[in-house]
Amino acid sequence: MEPNCTTPSDNYAADISSIRQAQVRIEPFAHKTPVLTSETLNSIAGRKLYFKCECFQKGGAFKFRGACNAIYSLDDDKAAKGVVTHSSGNHAAALALAAKLRGIPAYIVIPKNAPKCKVENVKRYGGQVIWSEPLMQSREDTANKVLQDTGAVLIHPYNDGRIISGQGTISLELLEQASEIDTLIVPISGGGLISGVALAAKAINPAIRILAAEPMGADDAFQSKSNGRITMLSEVNTIADGLQAFLGDLTWPIVRDLVDEVIVVDDKEIIQAMRLCYEILKIAVEPSGAIGLAAVLSDSFQKNPAYSECNHIGIVLSGGNVDLGVLWKSFD
Amino acid sequence: MEPNCTTPSDNYAADISSIRQAQVRIEPFAHKTPVLTSETLNSIAGRKLYFKCECFQKGGAFKFRGACNAIYSLDDDKAAKGVVTHSSGNHAAALALAAKLRGIPAYIVIPKNAPKCKVENVKRYGGQVIWSEPLMQSREDTANKVLQDTGAVLIHPYNDGRIISGQGTISLELLEQASEIDTLIVPISGGGLISGVALAAKAINPAIRILAAEPMGADDAFQSKSNGRITMLSEVNTIADGLQAFLGDLTWPIVRDLVDEVIVVDDKEIIQAMRLCYEILKIAVEPSGAIGLAAVLSDSFQKNPAYSECNHIGIVLSGGNVDLGVLWKSFD
Repeated sequence: MEPNCTTPSDNYAADISSIRQAQVRIEPFAHKTPVLTSETLNSIAGRKLYFKCECFQKGGAFKFRGACNAIYSLDDDKAAKGVVTHSSGNHAAALALAAKLRGIPAYIVIPKNAPKCKVENVKRYGGQVIWSEPLMQSREDTANKVLQDTGAVLIHPYNDGRIISGQGTISLELLEQASEIDTLIVPISGGGLISGVALAAKAINPAIRILAAEPMGADDAFQSKSNGRITMLSEVNTIADGLQAFLGDLTWPIVRDLVDEVIVVDDKEIIQAMRLCYEILKIAVEPSGAIGLAAVLSDSFQKNPAYSECNHIGIVLSGGNVDLGVLWKSFD
Repeated sequence: MEPNCTTPSDNYAADISSIRQAQVRIEPFAHKTPVLTSETLNSIAGRKLYFKCECFQKGGAFKFRGACNAIYSLDDDKAAKGVVTHSSGNHAAALALAAKLRGIPAYIVIPKNAPKCKVENVKRYGGQVIWSEPLMQSREDTANKVLQDTGAVLIHPYNDGRIISGQGTISLELLEQASEIDTLIVPISGGGLISGVALAAKAINPAIRILAAEPMGADDAFQSKSNGRITMLSEVNTIADGLQAFLGDLTWPIVRDLVDEVIVVDDKEIIQAMRLCYEILKIAVEPSGAIGLAAVLSDSFQKNPAYSECNHIGIVLSGGNVDLGVLWKSFD
């Protein structure tokens, strides 16, 4: 059994102790990402904003933290057979990169409709791409076949304590870099990122507020919180290709208990926030990465008196893997 | 007389002492910009690269350092009448911002063909825009008229010891952040940036190599170095709108003596480097900002045996103010 497979306190899949262990484990490999600030954006938002730039993480997204922690948690015998995942994006690239660092194979099941730049990232890091149909059933079936054929270990993109612990290291860094933060706004999809961030942040400062940012066209977390149970959607439709997964049975209890509210924004707000990231912060984020800024600028946040005391807001810019082909074509 | 108007040693317009004074002067206002690294780009370049991200500086470019130093060098009486400059871009915005911080007027003469986003930056920071025709003669005439009308102080974009000293603070920071650097690659235009960077870096480490990166369509610095005297061009033509100025009488002696070589790259190489900045570093740079990376990847650098011992290369990503309208239109 891996060290992080023991059930942490509160029956959650991770806790501050597993997150601190993850920090030690990934420290030799992961970037400590910078925190950027902008007077212009502070002025637009009416608050002080602290941007945790996970787009600068290895592989271009926070996912490397969890993937690295998961892979370096494996004992040598298990690790030797490699790892498998089915993921459309950043987790896949991150897992390939972490596997490459440890010198083990990574089998990545990718749906045929995945963004080209994310597939290229997987290949760049030496991941073995195995194509599947877009639907989740096909992705899972293909991954299971690979598992049987290779004896590799499945590393789920978010529903895994080792992954949650790795993502939680963001809070350890960020609250050291900007200890005045009273609120964190974090993108939500499967819930691995926000679960880790919330567990660590609340352990350090129980008064800290944790807000999730979710696209309107994939608002399963918002609906799950409203319904008090995991709620799936029959279809999703958003520009934020990294935020289309649903909560898992390990992330749901953490989201249910520790996330104060899910703020839902539409694609137009996401694109506007993305534009501000490029034009003001000078950071090339992907749509999913900009959603935290979209949330803080939304009416749902700005006009809610409950948030009038949120003055120092940490925003996780989660990733920067986006196809900008149209931009480069314009220079031809 | 302003403290920085005394002639520093070696008859240059600035020296390590004026640069250290500038650092103290601007420290309350300027960002200490992060240094990013990328294994992928290291592998492409065959060296370790250290990207000094001046696109994250206030105003979106390194220019704020010099502008802030110049404005806070003025005594109160002089400052009260405001400052003037004629600039197509980042210096203008930086001067407007620094003037706003000090609470004095900034009169900015801008040619009608300046990039829209740069004009918007000037306005955002409260600069008073005064339009001129594109040619330098019209810009200078208009600026002189403003000087007469207002009694304001002219702050030249680069040919000024206070500006050079401010830009030199980049070296103080960078060599503290990455002391292993043996080579610096810096964009060259009027020479204010590279003069400051070279003066400070050579004072800290005389063995450090200073390379300039210049666009082929505006290679006056390359020609000046070849000819041993300031050489102007009858026309310039490059996508790097921030690199179209010519050396001045204060920057030329420093460039002549301290810059080891000018590496010339074409626009295609600049765009390719810009693309790598967006796709790999996740940084939204302007063409001028990417030219240092273009230089290190160019044949002129890669195939020159003189550079085989340049293993730790600091690259100044000088700015990020670029119109990306085509990108946002694609989301409509």
